[in-house]
Amino acid sequence: MSLQKINEKKPLIHCITNYVVANFTANGLLTIGASPVMADAFEEVAEMTRIANALLLNIGTLNDRTVQSMLAAGKSANEHQVPIVLDPVGAGATAFRSQTTHTLLQQLKITLIRCNIGELAAIAGANWQAKGVDSGSGELDVVQTAKMIAKKYNCLVIVTGKEDVLTDGQQVEIIAGGHERITKITGSGCLLSAICAALLASSNEPFEDLAALLREYKQISLNAYASMGTF
Amino acid sequence: MSLQKINEKKPLIHCITNYVVANFTANGLLTIGASPVMADAFEEVAEMTRIANALLLNIGTLNDRTVQSMLAAGKSANEHQVPIVLDPVGAGATAFRSQTTHTLLQQLKITLIRCNIGELAAIAGANWQAKGVDSGSGELDVVQTAKMIAKKYNCLVIVTGKEDVLTDGQQVEIIAGGHERITKITGSGCLLSAICAALLASSNEPFEDLAALLREYKQISLNAYASMGTF
Amino acid sequence: MSLQKINEKKPLIHCITNYVVANFTANGLLTIGASPVMADAFEEVAEMTRIANALLLNIGTLNDRTVQSMLAAGKSANEHQVPIVLDPVGAGATAFRSQTTHTLLQQLKITLIRCNIGELAAIAGANWQAKGVDSGSGELDVVQTAKMIAKKYNCLVIVTGKEDVLTDGQQVEIIAGGHERITKITGSGCLLSAICAALLASSNEPFEDLAALLREYKQISLNAYASMGTF
Repeated sequence: MSLQKINEKKPLIHCITNYVVANFTANGLLTIGASPVMADAFEEVAEMTRIANALLLNIGTLNDRTVQSMLAAGKSANEHQVPIVLDPVGAGATAFRSQTTHTLLQQLKITLIRCNIGELAAIAGANWQAKGVDSGSGELDVVQTAKMIAKKYNCLVIVTGKEDVLTDGQQVEIIAGGHERITKITGSGCLLSAICAALLASSNEPFEDLAALLREYKQISLNAYASMGTF
Repeated sequence: MSLQKINEKKPLIHCITNYVVANFTANGLLTIGASPVMADAFEEVAEMTRIANALLLNIGTLNDRTVQSMLAAGKSANEHQVPIVLDPVGAGATAFRSQTTHTLLQQLKITLIRCNIGELAAIAGANWQAKGVDSGSGELDVVQTAKMIAKKYNCLVIVTGKEDVLTDGQQVEIIAGGHERITKITGSGCLLSAICAALLASSNEPFEDLAALLREYKQISLNAYASMGTF
Repeated sequence: MSLQKINEKKPLIHCITNYVVANFTANGLLTIGASPVMADAFEEVAEMTRIANALLLNIGTLNDRTVQSMLAAGKSANEHQVPIVLDPVGAGATAFRSQTTHTLLQQLKITLIRCNIGELAAIAGANWQAKGVDSGSGELDVVQTAKMIAKKYNCLVIVTGKEDVLTDGQQVEIIAGGHERITKITGSGCLLSAICAALLASSNEPFEDLAALLREYKQISLNAYASMGTF
């Protein structure tokens, strides 16, 4: 079970994430045995990343200052073999988010992109109508596009949605199930990205363990829905 | 029922709000069927507002950077007929908050001001002793002052407190009831402002629907208190 | 009972704190009868501190802008006899955090430092391996080091951990008990610092009341654990 590997390793996860989900992400990581640290000052991020076991870059409430910090942290991560998860929140919704996503992908070696379909479309330059930070609507061959992006950036790609897609550019895993109610909790995708970072810090078989994690996360959303009922 | 209109429209609400209540606000908006997007970078706010159905400007943790973003977003909102709700958190507590509130009211066409009595007093230049971001104490004819401000800025005004006052400068609706315990949840007023933004994005009868919303919000605080008991 | 003194005084607590725990801190302070206000703009912090009953400086997500605000707020606090609690989150983890902590301690008269063992070691310049914002590991005579720091800066020091240590440089109080599960809630230490600020604003016997507060906080973590069971 992939969450168990995290609990055994207890990795330190350096998160540069948005202020909407920072608390939820920190508590989520603590619950599974990881140690979160949120730090986004340019003066310290390279140093913080160096001692971390993984780096999370989430552009949900990016600004000019934190984009520079993301680049500095990312370069430190690459230098010290610290895996990076990129969550390109809202890529496609504004030019600033799309450009920042491209800059991060070009200047850094990213280990995993965790995104929704609209963000995938923005990364691929495909035609898509984003709706803020939600997925939006359009026509896209998700599997083919995800494979293409994984190959182009030599990284893993997870696209979450009604069906989750995981690919390394060759292998593809498709995970169905889950409950859409989870999209009613802000940051459920952001937290998943953080958990993926914790898993990359704890696993020797990232592809298999990420696939298992996605299945567990789908199941958790079903269990939560069952215990909660309607409101 | 006004919340139902929001759930049917599913409006995208661009929130420039404070980091204390960002998560609570996002979850609150998701619960009623709206799509929140938090974005405060100067580089992107005009573009984000353009695709939104309403804009929320909340100065709770303002700084020089975000004030510029609020102005840019607000101008974009005015240009594209996107309604704006202003929540002047802590106006009157510091000169910076009072001045920023006046700047926003002078440079932008605001659709609705949602404030407490102390903030209303600050907008009106009345004598009042604010206590941080709480309402504080003093003597003020709330109804007359709210009407005056609504006329001056040609907007709707909601002043919440033991009794809520809603006015467009002519009509006045006064809503009593509710439970003061709701003031023990940080951001209950901020969330109401966000819900008002969602309603303005979804309603053709803003005055009537806002009055209904205020009655529902009072009732929700009573229901929550009844189900919670004391602690 | 120390929390009762806070509820009677209802102090206004100006918090310059990190965005991970801002909501949790605000709700925690409201629950015990204090009024939180979060404000970190350089333009307003001196004015906000002047009307506050205590100032909390928490460097959890510091940046160059907010460090300047902390100094400005702190100087205003010193000028107006407003007590200051310093929570040096992650001191020792990065040079920026260690240096900022030293700057705050040198330029301001701090009333209470509330830290963990790793942060105490960083303040004392002792050899210690921090792990992000967690305590880390090493060898340190906590009581002697805390007394030394309390004397050096003429302040109270609380070091929390398996055993809490409170000292004014002469007297020492050691509080055992509690449950480590509380460390699984992000911000439990940050909230304690905020409650200490509220207590300093409400008490005429700070040493005795802080000791009582630490005992209550330990007890609360036990009660919460008992009511929660395992998961």
